[in-house]
Amino acid sequence: MSDIPFPKPSRRAFLRGAAATGTGLALAGTAQAEGDPLITQVQDWAQGFGDGVDATPYGLPIRFEDDVVRRNVEWLTADTISSINFTPIHALDGTITPQGCAFERHHSGAIELSKSDYRLMINGLVDKPLVFTYADLERFPRENHTYFLECAANTGMEWAGAQLNGAQFTHGMIHNMEYTGVPLRTLLNEAGYDTSATWIFVEGADASSNGRSIPMDKALDDVLVAFKANGEALRKEHGYPVRLVVPGWEGNMWVKWVRRIEVLNGPVESREETSKYTDTMADGSSRKWTWVMDAKSVITSPSPQAPITHGPGPLVITGLAWSGRGAITRVDVSKDGGKTWETARLAKPGENKALTRFYLDTDWDGEDMLLQARAMDDTGYVQPTKAQLRDVRGENSIYHNNCIQTWWVRPTGEAENVEVS
Amino acid sequence: MSDIPFPKPSRRAFLRGAAATGTGLALAGTAQAEGDPLITQVQDWAQGFGDGVDATPYGLPIRFEDDVVRRNVEWLTADTISSINFTPIHALDGTITPQGCAFERHHSGAIELSKSDYRLMINGLVDKPLVFTYADLERFPRENHTYFLECAANTGMEWAGAQLNGAQFTHGMIHNMEYTGVPLRTLLNEAGYDTSATWIFVEGADASSNGRSIPMDKALDDVLVAFKANGEALRKEHGYPVRLVVPGWEGNMWVKWVRRIEVLNGPVESREETSKYTDTMADGSSRKWTWVMDAKSVITSPSPQAPITHGPGPLVITGLAWSGRGAITRVDVSKDGGKTWETARLAKPGENKALTRFYLDTDWDGEDMLLQARAMDDTGYVQPTKAQLRDVRGENSIYHNNCIQTWWVRPTGEAENVEVS
Repeated sequence: MSDIPFPKPSRRAFLRGAAATGTGLALAGTAQAEGDPLITQVQDWAQGFGDGVDATPYGLPIRFEDDVVRRNVEWLTADTISSINFTPIHALDGTITPQGCAFERHHSGAIELSKSDYRLMINGLVDKPLVFTYADLERFPRENHTYFLECAANTGMEWAGAQLNGAQFTHGMIHNMEYTGVPLRTLLNEAGYDTSATWIFVEGADASSNGRSIPMDKALDDVLVAFKANGEALRKEHGYPVRLVVPGWEGNMWVKWVRRIEVLNGPVESREETSKYTDTMADGSSRKWTWVMDAKSVITSPSPQAPITHGPGPLVITGLAWSGRGAITRVDVSKDGGKTWETARLAKPGENKALTRFYLDTDWDGEDMLLQARAMDDTGYVQPTKAQLRDVRGENSIYHNNCIQTWWVRPTGEAENVEVS
Repeated sequence: MSDIPFPKPSRRAFLRGAAATGTGLALAGTAQAEGDPLITQVQDWAQGFGDGVDATPYGLPIRFEDDVVRRNVEWLTADTISSINFTPIHALDGTITPQGCAFERHHSGAIELSKSDYRLMINGLVDKPLVFTYADLERFPRENHTYFLECAANTGMEWAGAQLNGAQFTHGMIHNMEYTGVPLRTLLNEAGYDTSATWIFVEGADASSNGRSIPMDKALDDVLVAFKANGEALRKEHGYPVRLVVPGWEGNMWVKWVRRIEVLNGPVESREETSKYTDTMADGSSRKWTWVMDAKSVITSPSPQAPITHGPGPLVITGLAWSGRGAITRVDVSKDGGKTWETARLAKPGENKALTRFYLDTDWDGEDMLLQARAMDDTGYVQPTKAQLRDVRGENSIYHNNCIQTWWVRPTGEAENVEVS
């Protein structure tokens, strides 16, 4: 692979994956069984009893999975109450993200708000301002939809070059859940919204209030006032008891602990949509109202936190793809930094504004690889390279980095976050 | 509703739902807001900070949801290590069941088995007996599928009449997860199974070993050797690190901690498929090999543990439907014990061998209701009444009770498990 451009090493390899064993493990065989005490002897766990059905009314992962957790990065923010942690996507498979390890972003910490204390006001340009209790919301027709939520800042450190060594840290500000809730248009209709009104402004019940303006067209389209995720109540850190779901749009707009929705004839241009969540261009001007999360993908394994632990031969390359504009139609994978591509297998047909799992079942020759994935959605959009993105957007941005990611996989199986020039 | 047959009260109302408040709550209004300190005052949770992003690396439900847990019934079995607990389906919505509250059934308790100690043997009528490590399994092409798992004994107490007062207890031996795993046919091919062989026998690594015979046709069809559920590792109680997934078939065949699969030319007729999991008919003979879980449904709310807490007016009736033979195509709901039916709204088109959520958005007159749901699947099968089922199967069975369930909802909103004559 001498024709691969030499990769630029990480500037900050603060979290390096465990060293690969590289034992050249044979796939399976009787030879292994003959000398294997795990096969030839009766094990402890087959001789005694395990836990009874009263052991864990609500269970947690087994202790062997203690490293599959949300992680935050201390130097990233001044305080943990206005900060972020990251989903361990390198260790997950499938598409659903359990609430327990789904990333969090708070502006003033996760508050505790009971259903009985919960109120939702709809006011502004409406016939009749309304206040809903939690019990009121349960009386309106509900819908179920699975959607991804991606923070606008996901992959934001990559603008400046390969920084964080792990898919959890470069791409883990994302999760994907099945939501149950009431369409916002149902509640706006109940209040009799002014049909000439063009915007809503949404506030949370936390101290930050995290107010965001949303165009009425979106509010009437697919926005949900949601109270369940993956079948059960929203967790505290995900906005219990009620959050907004704004499919395909940046996570900051999915206001948690939502307390007020005002119908307006213009945007508020609040602190949360001016001081943040705008994109500074090369000339110093700023893009605003960049709500949609464009098509994107990442290889979750192998990756820096999920090295290859075997020798050459069969290897499953897997990752996630998503688009805020619709469904993923195709994902290509490159092993040589984008010179050649193979089309990956989608585990299921892409779903609207939801994560898609892809697999490339391949035969690894044991040599270096520069792994990349490239997503396409049903609008015909193709995920850009980092160079293409910088050509258009410069390098001053924090948000909306959806460029192709590169992992340099070594013959040892270890992987590193790199840029290809 | 004087023409409704008088319901037979529960024989054992050991878990009665909380008394309904029945306050005649208006849906929402400004009057409520004007005197409501939750609207007119700044609340504590809006004045201080909440939890930081380092508070819970792996989160649990908020304390207000402490009652939404698996529950076991002490008098049902002699010991909790060979027993069952129940999914709190009365409190869930959508279709995904979080692993943490998904029901458990163990024959000798939930064992702790690490990935490094894990081995899977395939032997018997094969060219080459094989032993797979966990790492080996990760090298084969994977699939993702969402399937329900229902215990054959779910609703088993109902053969004798309305017994347990709550959907969690009558229908909670079910869960629905997105599995990631390797098709069993891939591993059987790897071992070179004898193509004239007609059965496999599957064992778990726990003391019970829970051995079950499965016809080769099923083994080669859609059975998975699974290692993830809802995106993350299987929980200990769900078979960590590897379990069998046998879509649409009774849960006992989904062998947990699967350690051996033997290819055979006949069934083993093991203890687990002779002393249990057969159905005693009225004449004392037994049905055997009744693997498929037929189409079934249940209303989860309102139900005895989820009473109506408001007065007449808009009411969401919701529940779950499923079929081991394919996809749910239609669910009907009756409010008068099966005299008249309305077709419910399916939240999504029915999926193959997965839970389907249905809703009936209705206007409650505040009077008694005898609520029933009736599922249909894409084979044309219609869920039977309890009388129809007893006509064919007698009353001696424990397993495979898929009859229509009745909840008697009173004007107070309270509901009770009843039989209609």
